[in-house]
Amino acid sequence: MRMTEILEKKKNGQPLTEAEINYWIDGCMSGEIPDYQTAALLMAIYFRGMNKEETVALTSALARSGQQLDFSGLAFVADKHSTGGVGDKTTLVLLPLLGAAGVRMAKMSGRGLGHTGGTIDKLSCIPGFRTDLPRDVFLRQVEELGLALTGQTPELAPADGKLYALRDVTATVDSLPLIASSVMSKKIASGARSIVLDVKTGSGAFFQSREKAMALARLMVMIGNRIGRRTVALLTSMEQPLGYAVGNHIEVLEAIATLKGEGPEDLRELCLALGTEVMLLTGKETDPAAAREGLATLLAGGEALAMFRRFVAAQGGDPEVTERPELLGVPAATRAVFAPEDGYISRLDARRVGEAAVMLGAGREKKDDPVDLNAGIKLYKKTGDLAKAGEHLADVFCNDPQKLRQAAEYLQSAFAFSQEKPPSQPLILGRIA
Amino acid sequence: MRMTEILEKKKNGQPLTEAEINYWIDGCMSGEIPDYQTAALLMAIYFRGMNKEETVALTSALARSGQQLDFSGLAFVADKHSTGGVGDKTTLVLLPLLGAAGVRMAKMSGRGLGHTGGTIDKLSCIPGFRTDLPRDVFLRQVEELGLALTGQTPELAPADGKLYALRDVTATVDSLPLIASSVMSKKIASGARSIVLDVKTGSGAFFQSREKAMALARLMVMIGNRIGRRTVALLTSMEQPLGYAVGNHIEVLEAIATLKGEGPEDLRELCLALGTEVMLLTGKETDPAAAREGLATLLAGGEALAMFRRFVAAQGGDPEVTERPELLGVPAATRAVFAPEDGYISRLDARRVGEAAVMLGAGREKKDDPVDLNAGIKLYKKTGDLAKAGEHLADVFCNDPQKLRQAAEYLQSAFAFSQEKPPSQPLILGRIA
Repeated sequence: MRMTEILEKKKNGQPLTEAEINYWIDGCMSGEIPDYQTAALLMAIYFRGMNKEETVALTSALARSGQQLDFSGLAFVADKHSTGGVGDKTTLVLLPLLGAAGVRMAKMSGRGLGHTGGTIDKLSCIPGFRTDLPRDVFLRQVEELGLALTGQTPELAPADGKLYALRDVTATVDSLPLIASSVMSKKIASGARSIVLDVKTGSGAFFQSREKAMALARLMVMIGNRIGRRTVALLTSMEQPLGYAVGNHIEVLEAIATLKGEGPEDLRELCLALGTEVMLLTGKETDPAAAREGLATLLAGGEALAMFRRFVAAQGGDPEVTERPELLGVPAATRAVFAPEDGYISRLDARRVGEAAVMLGAGREKKDDPVDLNAGIKLYKKTGDLAKAGEHLADVFCNDPQKLRQAAEYLQSAFAFSQEKPPSQPLILGRIA
Repeated sequence: MRMTEILEKKKNGQPLTEAEINYWIDGCMSGEIPDYQTAALLMAIYFRGMNKEETVALTSALARSGQQLDFSGLAFVADKHSTGGVGDKTTLVLLPLLGAAGVRMAKMSGRGLGHTGGTIDKLSCIPGFRTDLPRDVFLRQVEELGLALTGQTPELAPADGKLYALRDVTATVDSLPLIASSVMSKKIASGARSIVLDVKTGSGAFFQSREKAMALARLMVMIGNRIGRRTVALLTSMEQPLGYAVGNHIEVLEAIATLKGEGPEDLRELCLALGTEVMLLTGKETDPAAAREGLATLLAGGEALAMFRRFVAAQGGDPEVTERPELLGVPAATRAVFAPEDGYISRLDARRVGEAAVMLGAGREKKDDPVDLNAGIKLYKKTGDLAKAGEHLADVFCNDPQKLRQAAEYLQSAFAFSQEKPPSQPLILGRIA
């Protein structure tokens, strides 16, 4: 087998065989195939795409390239993945909620990049919380406590790490089969037998087009199922941020409020919808209505909150954060954003809100940028709300007062106004099974 | 400027600016832009193409990347380039012929690769002939003798060398703007103010499709003229080999025969046609008929042959080769190929003939393969000729008798037969000015 022949085939639009894909990925990792050949192939894949068989084969090859966790001896092990959004603290609520429901959640998370946040950054606000569990500790905690969360290690699907780094510098990130195989390879290697995907679309999502997001969701569900993992995706709206909090410590606070039954409706709704899918997928429940009601009861009865505290304690964090918000830190400076005119908020652009949060220091523009864990945005009005000129729309805050003004002005530009009440937007747009 | 933005633009089909192309080529040569980014861009160019402005800018950037010869103080300096064919010894005839006509031919040639031969290999058969003239010797010989030929040095358009090496291993050789800019960058850097291109099409040519070859010819002529070089192309047929000799020493013999007025008609015709273009382009003549007649007279009168002898002597070779063919070497073994049936030869596939020559050792499959200078093929019949079963079609010969049988069988497969005389094929298919 020769890499130039593989390149020639893909360039001419012929599908690659599983053996050819394995040869490429193995050679890429061993160094036998130089990066320039991989880069050229990535660009050819961008233009020619990959069929289902190729995409499944690539996912398997990436997943097999490093350590793989094995939960096959354990019942009800699930994983959940979001394609990334603004104010998306779902994982922080969903994990303890499902843990309380008897599902085992084995979750590996990434750090935030660009205008979307990352669960690892959010949990880092909790004093003492460890996000780098050794493999055996992670496995044991999933088994014994029922949930564990750790950062993605380089040992997990390292070929995906290498490929992603090359895609990042060769303008080949936005290829559907490459995105789908990248996400799913890490889910496959993480070992859960049931996978629920939250594929976001709209202004703040990676794919703003609903068609593209739907295509991605279909592709990922197909891959998961073909590789023998029960996989379901919800297509959800990311036109405006989820909930009212965007940042790190402030999202933890909103997640805790939700676990206490005091959270925003959209966040609670998304957690129940995704949670129901997990309950059904793992076989913990068979009736959707019963699953949803069971989860709602666990939220209302405090069991989910109690599980959150046990989870925080198990990972070395201080569970008292649920009662003492100041443990998460307090930003040094705040600035209010006011409505410039009377009217209904016709749009609250999630991407701009996310970008304002990055300006404040809550996120990263580049991989190794430092993050201000107390930087963030608190929203008081969202799409469909009525505002009077001068009314309080939001607060921006962080530890560097010099950043406030520009971020506040930019955040204001995320709001659009109209004289008529805009039609309400559904949160859950579709389900792909 | 950032390479990822350049990649993004080209990927999305937007044209690159001259500044962006210069940034890329400069960065590629300095090492600031890693090869994997160049490889990805080459693949994006394969898919998206380049417009005229981009192609001219790329050619200029490649030409400027190293040494450039300057003949602007010297009149009537021309260059000739063939896109490569089988049995194409035109340069060996044309250079002394034009030299005798008072044009200065400054020619840098490559070695053969694949099924097409290279002028440097052919001239290497002549004992003592130097194909690596130092720059100042080359310049002086062009001025004083009126013709000089040397191998392409790495100092000439080194960025083209680097890009070509990457294209070769990333399946991006067959891109029209990349081919055109590669060829023309070397012609531009070689300094001649007048350039005549022989763009071949048909079985033995790089582009078998006449449309693609015509597009390449148009593109190269456009580039040359925009960069201020008078450029003309002839589109010529390479369905069957040129002349009756394919190999190295045997092509030199056929070129000498042509200089003596005893060569094959197609070779003589092509030399007169290309030569006429050079005479007109340099301004040495203004009337095409007069130019052609003048060249024919120089062939008939022995002036072209005399100039060939002076040229050989000037480059350290033994001019007696024109009278003593054995000085070029004699192959150790020969095998005849006979007609398997009665009939007209309906086709003589140039590519197969070229491949048979490579099997004999006359050419290279890979860049650094050794070459048997006495390996080759002598044809006795060509397309349109009548043959009886058992009649002598060709001889194959080389210094390794073990190679003869397979090459002879393969060569036989290059001949096709029919009961009707095939229509005669024109040699010169078009002229692009």
